[in-house]
Formats: sequence, structure tokens, C-alpha cells
Amino acid sequence: MTNTRRQFLRGAAQLGAIAPFLTVGALAQRAAAADVESARFGSTAEEAYQIAYKAHEDLMTLPDLRMHGEEKIAMVVYPKMTMLDLVGPQFFFSAMMGSSVYLVSKDETLSPVMGDTGFAIVPTISMADCPNDLDILFVGGGTSGTVDFMNDQTSMDFVADRGARARHITSVCTGSMILGQAGLINGKKATSHWAVRHLLPNFGAEAVDARVVRDGNVMTGAGVSAGLDFALALLAQIRGEAYAKSVQLAAEYAPDPMFNAGTLSSADPKMGDAMHKMYATAIFAMDEASRRQKRE
Amino acid sequence: MTNTRRQFLRGAAQLGAIAPFLTVGALAQRAAAADVESARFGSTAEEAYQIAYKAHEDLMTLPDLRMHGEEKIAMVVYPKMTMLDLVGPQFFFSAMMGSSVYLVSKDETLSPVMGDTGFAIVPTISMADCPNDLDILFVGGGTSGTVDFMNDQTSMDFVADRGARARHITSVCTGSMILGQAGLINGKKATSHWAVRHLLPNFGAEAVDARVVRDGNVMTGAGVSAGLDFALALLAQIRGEAYAKSVQLAAEYAPDPMFNAGTLSSADPKMGDAMHKMYATAIFAMDEASRRQKRE
Repeated sequence: MTNTRRQFLRGAAQLGAIAPFLTVGALAQRAAAADVESARFGSTAEEAYQIAYKAHEDLMTLPDLRMHGEEKIAMVVYPKMTMLDLVGPQFFFSAMMGSSVYLVSKDETLSPVMGDTGFAIVPTISMADCPNDLDILFVGGGTSGTVDFMNDQTSMDFVADRGARARHITSVCTGSMILGQAGLINGKKATSHWAVRHLLPNFGAEAVDARVVRDGNVMTGAGVSAGLDFALALLAQIRGEAYAKSVQLAAEYAPDPMFNAGTLSSADPKMGDAMHKMYATAIFAMDEASRRQKRE
Repeated sequence: MTNTRRQFLRGAAQLGAIAPFLTVGALAQRAAAADVESARFGSTAEEAYQIAYKAHEDLMTLPDLRMHGEEKIAMVVYPKMTMLDLVGPQFFFSAMMGSSVYLVSKDETLSPVMGDTGFAIVPTISMADCPNDLDILFVGGGTSGTVDFMNDQTSMDFVADRGARARHITSVCTGSMILGQAGLINGKKATSHWAVRHLLPNFGAEAVDARVVRDGNVMTGAGVSAGLDFALALLAQIRGEAYAKSVQLAAEYAPDPMFNAGTLSSADPKMGDAMHKMYATAIFAMDEASRRQKRE
């Protein structure tokens, strides 16, 4: 919009009821409202910067808002994982000011890691170089990639070692199968993607049909999209409710799916059964891996 | 769990009421239930594969499930964008069997692109090589990265060109500012991240405070996490309700955040105001860019 047109419309809005045509009046009111809103954020770049700076200070004075921390957060990245499992929580973790978020790969060359939806993420640190003492160890899920990870000794040694020392042991989706294989959820309540939740007892865990399950220092999330609910809950636990809510607002996390079909119990039964069996090879392989590990 | 222990527990479950201790009985029942569930997915790898294969066929026979398509989908990847804006919808798009999902970068070397939460994604095609006629053009958002994109002629030419030909012109978060700058939402209803929604009239669009807004062939989503609701809606439009629901189930998308604080109206007013002003520099710069474009 040109400045001239804005001035015209602002003028028209001030004229109000005597605007010659209703549409011109409505347009003008809308443009004027936008101008008023815009004015809150400065009329020069420098003013905008000062407003943002002051807002940061204002946030720091809000009660119970733990603005800064030094958490060390490791998120495991592995081939054929479901990247959304990781990217949802990563948004929340990266918003924890002062924290360090590591994307950890087995591969020391830090080559991009291809996920199971066809795109690759670049890891930032190798398992060998990852800090020993973590505030959060996070593992996401997948299908055949998760099975491969469960059957890889180096990867499992990493999870077992860092998990044993971590302040929070966490997963989303079938990532809890990996935690289980590493012996980290034995005796704990946990959840997983609905398709494999029944396997949790193989690891000595109690399967809970819930979106997010916290038991002591273990927090697990359900399938894929549950990563957002999981991360919000973990953030609230670590940085407090006010901080968690500020990140929820940044993410505009007020979900509203047009269908209620995201769980096995809400899905059409024929569809749910077929979808479940589509995962048969991964379910079978995870089941096998869990039994083999226990035999060793 | 060893096979021996499983056999013992299964035996104990069959004994039922005469199990000597309640805990053993409960454990055994749980293990037996897990075994029954496991048995549905085969007792050998080959059986599991056959079950999965048959399930795929079963899904194809469900009414109104458009299982395969050949959609060409381009998702723009640019520096300092919010990667979750893209990765949420990418999960849904990649689940459209037969479709091609391109991650499009301006940079012809296809170097990894660093997002605003500190990790990089590898693009798969350059703007120059991207197909001309797309079924879906998708643009995600960000703050300063989005401003840079709006002020880059090559990038905007790409969006304007592919958008003018695309069957569906789409965005999440401040991606709608980019669509606006490219002249693609003039006269349309649209939404955006709450922090900049008031700027939509600068592009001739009508700002709607909604999670997902569809107007003709333009579909826009609200901030960041709205990408999941957006993608579900678009998938339903393109592949039908049954297909969309099957992907919703795969994603276990039954969101349940522990707080209701994801919108400006539900947030604490002091927090909301400060958070809004934290974005002042980006808001000011997007406002400026939109006015400059209109003057040209």
C-alpha cells in the first residue's frame, strides 16, 4: 500500500459515517486499524529494535518466568527416523534461552541424515563428542530405521550411557522402544506410538495409553505429533509454566484438527486395523529385537 | 523377556485364578495380552511382510480412499526460516503415495539451509530446476529470514511465477507475508502467525483469525504448529477425507496440550503484549517491505 493511499484511507476512516460508499468506509476502517496496530511496533527500524529490547526486559520481570538456563540437550538423529518426531520438540527446546541443543549422529563425519519422509537433517555433533552429562536425552522414532538403531551396538551403548546419567530421559513415538532396548524404562510407566505400545512390557515397562507419560525422570510421548504436547510438558517441568506458555504462544500451539481420527479408538475400525497391520514388519522386528536383547 | 519367561508367564496366565500371588497373576495377564497382540503381526518376518502387504491391499479397497496420485509439491526452503512450519506439513505431503515432494532452495549447489532454531535441512532441488506446473506451492515462515526472502528479487520471482500456475497456493505462519509480497493473495481471505496477521491488508488480503483459511485455491495456516491442521485440511481436499484420516492416525494427531495458551486471546495479557513486541523488528520490516513493494 502506498503511503498516499494509506493517508487517504486514514483520512476516510476519520470521516467515518460520511464516507460516500460503505465499501470505501469499511476498507478505510480496516486499513486504519492496521495502521494503529502497526504503530505499536515503531515507525523506524531503530524504534522497533528498542521496543523489542524493552519487551525482552519486560518478560524477564514476569513472575516465575525462568528466562535463562544452561541445559545441555541431546537429540539423537539416525537414518530413516521420522524427522517430525524430533523437529516438533526441537522448536520448544531451541526456545529455552541459554540452553545448548545438540543433534547427535553416530557418524563422525556429520553427514546429513536422511529421514523416513524423504529429507535430510544435518547433525551437529557425533556420539563420541556428545557431552557426557545431559539435562535431556531425547530419542525420536520411526519404523525400520528404529529397528536398525535398536540392533546397532554402538548406538545402543550411547543411549544407555547418556541415559543412565541424564537428568531427563525422554522419547517420542517409537523412540521409547530404543529407551526400552537400552534398559532405561524397566519398571517405569511409558507410552509410544499406538502401533507398538503393546510391546512396552517386553522391556519391563508398563504401557500407558496417554499422550504424554511422566514417571520419575522418564518422560515419553505418543506417536509423531505428540512431540509437541511432550515438549510443552517437559518445558513446563524444567523452566516453569510461564515460560512453557510463552513458547506455546510463539508456536501458536492451539491445535484444531478438522477430524477426530488421530487415535486407534477414534479411527474407523477397518481403517485402524489395516493401518496397524501396515506396520507389521516393524512391529515384528521390534518385538524380536526386544526378546533378543533380553536373552543376551 | 526370554522365551522361557514368556512361556512361564503365559502358563501362569492360563492358570488364572490359582496363580499363587496377585502380582504374578497380573504380570502374567499383561504379558499374555501382549503376546496375543503380537501374534496379530506374524510369527516370522515373512508372515509379517505378508500381513503388511495384505493390509495395503485392504486399504485400497476402502471406499473413497484415493490411495495413489502424482501430485507435484514444492516446499520452499530458505535461510533462517522456521523449519517446523515446513516439517509438519512435509510429514502429511510425503504420505501422499505417488506424489513428489520437492524441497526448493534458491542456491543451486543445494547446500544445507540453516533454519532459525539452529539446525539445517538439505534441499532437494533448486528454484531454477523446480517443475513449472505444481499441484502445491508451499511457503513457510520465520522472522528476519522471511524479511530477507521478501526483499530478494530472485526468490520473489520464483514464488510469483510458480504461484501463478499452481493448483494450490499455500503457506503456514509468516509464509503468507511472502505470498502477499508476490501478489498471490490480493483480494483473498487469509491468515498468518498472530503477530503479523494485522499486516495482511497491506497485501490486499482480508485477515481472518482462524487456524486454517481456504479461499479459492489459496490455503493459509496460522503460526508454526498450525501447519499440521493446515496439511490435514489440504490433504482432505486433495485426496479425500478417508486418506487424510489415515495419515492423521499415522501421525497420532490427537493433540492435547496441557495449557490453553497458544493464542493471543488465551495468553496472559502482559505476556502476550511482551511476546508481540519481541517481534517488533520483524513486524516493522515486513510492514516496510509490503509498502515498498506496493510503491514499485
